[in-house]
Amino acid sequence: MKELEFKEGDLCTVRIIKKNFLVKLKSGEILHTNKGYVRHNDIIGILPGSKLLTNLNKPVYVFRPSVEDLVFSVKRFTNISYPKEIAWIVFSLGLKNGMKVLESGTGSGSLAIALAYFVSPEGRVISCERREEFIDDARKSIEKAGLLEYVELRAGDLKDAVSEVNYFDACVLDLPEPWGVLETVYDSLKPGAPLAIFVPTVNQVEKTVISLRNFGFMPPQTMEILHRFWDIKTGASRPEFEMRGHTGFIVQTRKIISREDF
Amino acid sequence: MKELEFKEGDLCTVRIIKKNFLVKLKSGEILHTNKGYVRHNDIIGILPGSKLLTNLNKPVYVFRPSVEDLVFSVKRFTNISYPKEIAWIVFSLGLKNGMKVLESGTGSGSLAIALAYFVSPEGRVISCERREEFIDDARKSIEKAGLLEYVELRAGDLKDAVSEVNYFDACVLDLPEPWGVLETVYDSLKPGAPLAIFVPTVNQVEKTVISLRNFGFMPPQTMEILHRFWDIKTGASRPEFEMRGHTGFIVQTRKIISREDF
Amino acid sequence: MKELEFKEGDLCTVRIIKKNFLVKLKSGEILHTNKGYVRHNDIIGILPGSKLLTNLNKPVYVFRPSVEDLVFSVKRFTNISYPKEIAWIVFSLGLKNGMKVLESGTGSGSLAIALAYFVSPEGRVISCERREEFIDDARKSIEKAGLLEYVELRAGDLKDAVSEVNYFDACVLDLPEPWGVLETVYDSLKPGAPLAIFVPTVNQVEKTVISLRNFGFMPPQTMEILHRFWDIKTGASRPEFEMRGHTGFIVQTRKIISREDF
Amino acid sequence: MKELEFKEGDLCTVRIIKKNFLVKLKSGEILHTNKGYVRHNDIIGILPGSKLLTNLNKPVYVFRPSVEDLVFSVKRFTNISYPKEIAWIVFSLGLKNGMKVLESGTGSGSLAIALAYFVSPEGRVISCERREEFIDDARKSIEKAGLLEYVELRAGDLKDAVSEVNYFDACVLDLPEPWGVLETVYDSLKPGAPLAIFVPTVNQVEKTVISLRNFGFMPPQTMEILHRFWDIKTGASRPEFEMRGHTGFIVQTRKIISREDF
Repeated sequence: MKELEFKEGDLCTVRIIKKNFLVKLKSGEILHTNKGYVRHNDIIGILPGSKLLTNLNKPVYVFRPSVEDLVFSVKRFTNISYPKEIAWIVFSLGLKNGMKVLESGTGSGSLAIALAYFVSPEGRVISCERREEFIDDARKSIEKAGLLEYVELRAGDLKDAVSEVNYFDACVLDLPEPWGVLETVYDSLKPGAPLAIFVPTVNQVEKTVISLRNFGFMPPQTMEILHRFWDIKTGASRPEFEMRGHTGFIVQTRKIISREDF
Repeated sequence: MKELEFKEGDLCTVRIIKKNFLVKLKSGEILHTNKGYVRHNDIIGILPGSKLLTNLNKPVYVFRPSVEDLVFSVKRFTNISYPKEIAWIVFSLGLKNGMKVLESGTGSGSLAIALAYFVSPEGRVISCERREEFIDDARKSIEKAGLLEYVELRAGDLKDAVSEVNYFDACVLDLPEPWGVLETVYDSLKPGAPLAIFVPTVNQVEKTVISLRNFGFMPPQTMEILHRFWDIKTGASRPEFEMRGHTGFIVQTRKIISREDF
Repeated sequence: MKELEFKEGDLCTVRIIKKNFLVKLKSGEILHTNKGYVRHNDIIGILPGSKLLTNLNKPVYVFRPSVEDLVFSVKRFTNISYPKEIAWIVFSLGLKNGMKVLESGTGSGSLAIALAYFVSPEGRVISCERREEFIDDARKSIEKAGLLEYVELRAGDLKDAVSEVNYFDACVLDLPEPWGVLETVYDSLKPGAPLAIFVPTVNQVEKTVISLRNFGFMPPQTMEILHRFWDIKTGASRPEFEMRGHTGFIVQTRKIISREDF
Repeated sequence: MKELEFKEGDLCTVRIIKKNFLVKLKSGEILHTNKGYVRHNDIIGILPGSKLLTNLNKPVYVFRPSVEDLVFSVKRFTNISYPKEIAWIVFSLGLKNGMKVLESGTGSGSLAIALAYFVSPEGRVISCERREEFIDDARKSIEKAGLLEYVELRAGDLKDAVSEVNYFDACVLDLPEPWGVLETVYDSLKPGAPLAIFVPTVNQVEKTVISLRNFGFMPPQTMEILHRFWDIKTGASRPEFEMRGHTGFIVQTRKIISREDF
């Protein structure tokens, strides 16, 4: 099992009492938390799933990062689509190694991380962001998640930044005004390729759905996703009291060849 | 774009008025539906996203099958977990090319199809099914989805059918009594590897959660997933009246090294 | 317990295998169902909660009708708000004996039945309906529920049919365009009185909320109500598979004196 | 409109910036809040729905308390069923003036307040509470809501505190172990009368449903109620981000005469 052990340079999810920390293992470094500290050296050479203790005797578990761990490692400086929406987008776009995915906007980089995880190592994510001040932070987040080599960040509006034609296998939009870029998205997608759009309000959904009709896409499907977590205790099981009531809507469609109305 | 066109032998989703048909294109064959028929020859050589007409003049769209199309192509002869649950499982297990996934039971094969889609071409799905009478139908469904070479079907209880140790990158259980196979699952998973369990009742969740504690897994997370579809019409948008109220619960955890209680 | 027994002329809910029938007991009459028949004479003189058999030996239970039984006794010839919405409206308007309630439109009469149940015997429901063809059927339904003496049906638009000023204790609107009648509603309500509005689409909610601002109402609260039914079996309990995904939205507010904007 | 004005001794809901205060108007008294103060004398003699200002110039609206205002006026020192559940219980029990309702346990008194509101002035709520230390606070809360004369508080377990037979028109249980009191509840209810039970966990639901079968009640219906609030802004409407994920389950049934199994 030697080959399964953590090595210097590996990413590691360090779980200390319901809280996860994403670290890149480096000999001599120390992870400091409010439950005590852990030496990277104590993680290097042990197996994922192992238990350690902080210097304050708090239990620590170490894992290979899940894609959810990577997504959550991003500092939340913009509204991000949630893992529940990201999971559905990855599935419905059928993201696999080798696929080329277009994304706009980059935002915090959290969605780009998930996309890159699934299309790497041979695929690529082209991610556009109009607000230049976001790009540096997004790059750092994607790099921290170990996925920067699979993501090409482009500054500027999608319309200016993308000139590929019939090129992308899939596209995800997480923009306030997705209807403004649909012509470019249409041109850049391969024939029949899928498109998923994330927007927070019903009004954005309406405008998006109307515009899709004019730009050569199939009549779309619109939905919300709700996750309901449960508190399971023997003889006292119930849903959790707190729940996320809303994140946003997902509009899904595919590019068609003829641009007729439906 | 020649290389993007449909060729003989390709899988194709034929969409005729809100209904999808999965076909393997073969020169000379005809797809018959209650909206008329379409000749495969008319599809071979055209681009995905193209529009045709049936002999009854009904509009037809042709696409490369999405993974959702593949999952839905299965005849529903057993209770299957739904795309909404499958999407979350694929995401939370982080399924990628090259991973080895253990599944039990095979059931209709719908979940195996999704797993194989995401871990192919270099990964493998090992899928066990105790009820031998299901295996033939599952094999046909997986073959129809073009993914049989990535799935190894094993007849028999997981406990007897699996002897690999520290081998699988992930495991999914869709069994009435998952607690009965946890020891084998534990042994067969790599250290730290994730496990997702799908069960329809709260009582099964309780028994599963208790058993996980005794077999060396992290305290699990339990949840339900609800999809709410919307009917978007300009000026008259509302959620759809009908909704799936329940499919099942997902219990998620990871293998740990020490088998201490929490 | 003599005084608790069913008497000629009483309303009775006859429950035969998960189906309820609302009947007015009359000596000599017979209730025919597809599970067999029951003679009214066999119900007269027995206690609510008693068990009988149909001529086909199917079990029958008889009860005093609940308000839900009365609401469901209406033939559903128009879209009606559901018991889940009606329950919340009754509660949030605080409907009690003696209150005067304004309703528009009458529709099938189902909501009027619930309102009349709660404000009777000293209160009154004034219910307006523009579509004259609905009024006769609504009257029959309300009469069948035994509550016609507490409901005044008025044909015509609310604006023409209502001239009372500072008169009503509460108002409920179940109209496609509630914003068109808010001035009349404002005038007809007592100072501070509550108003509940039921509309099926988000777009109607938006128009309603904007209009309320211009007509002297408090900033309203908007919500949806979801009921999730459970199938409870020892050791196999789960939510029901089918669920009502949407009925409509409820917008609630109160009349204020000054008409300033918020 | 003189008779509609607030008078000394009236209950008044004082709304100051999204927060409600329930006060009994008394000449010379002052309501102090963190947005400034309001003199009762400024409310006495004005109409409900009127706008005032605090000494800090914050807007104040005054209303006759709704039943929801009364329920929320209770200090939340025990887990209480929420307005959404209370509304459904009131509706499904069909609570009206003159009805006699049995409740156990009293808890904070919030449910008793709602029950008393709907059955007053001629009906009565008999409310039992085993934990004597709760009764004083509950009494104060019910008195503050102006409804104490309609509620009889009894200390002790329902089994000891209630000897009425065939007496109550309806019963509500909000107890950790409702199955322990079903025999007394059965005896105390009128034939055919409705019973609603509120419990937070699925396990309590299961035990309750099994016990009801043995004590002469109809096969019950079990459900959860979810309220989803919306943030309506012109052109930017969406569900609220935060949502109550769970309060409890409601089990509903009616007393039947024969005690046969179903």
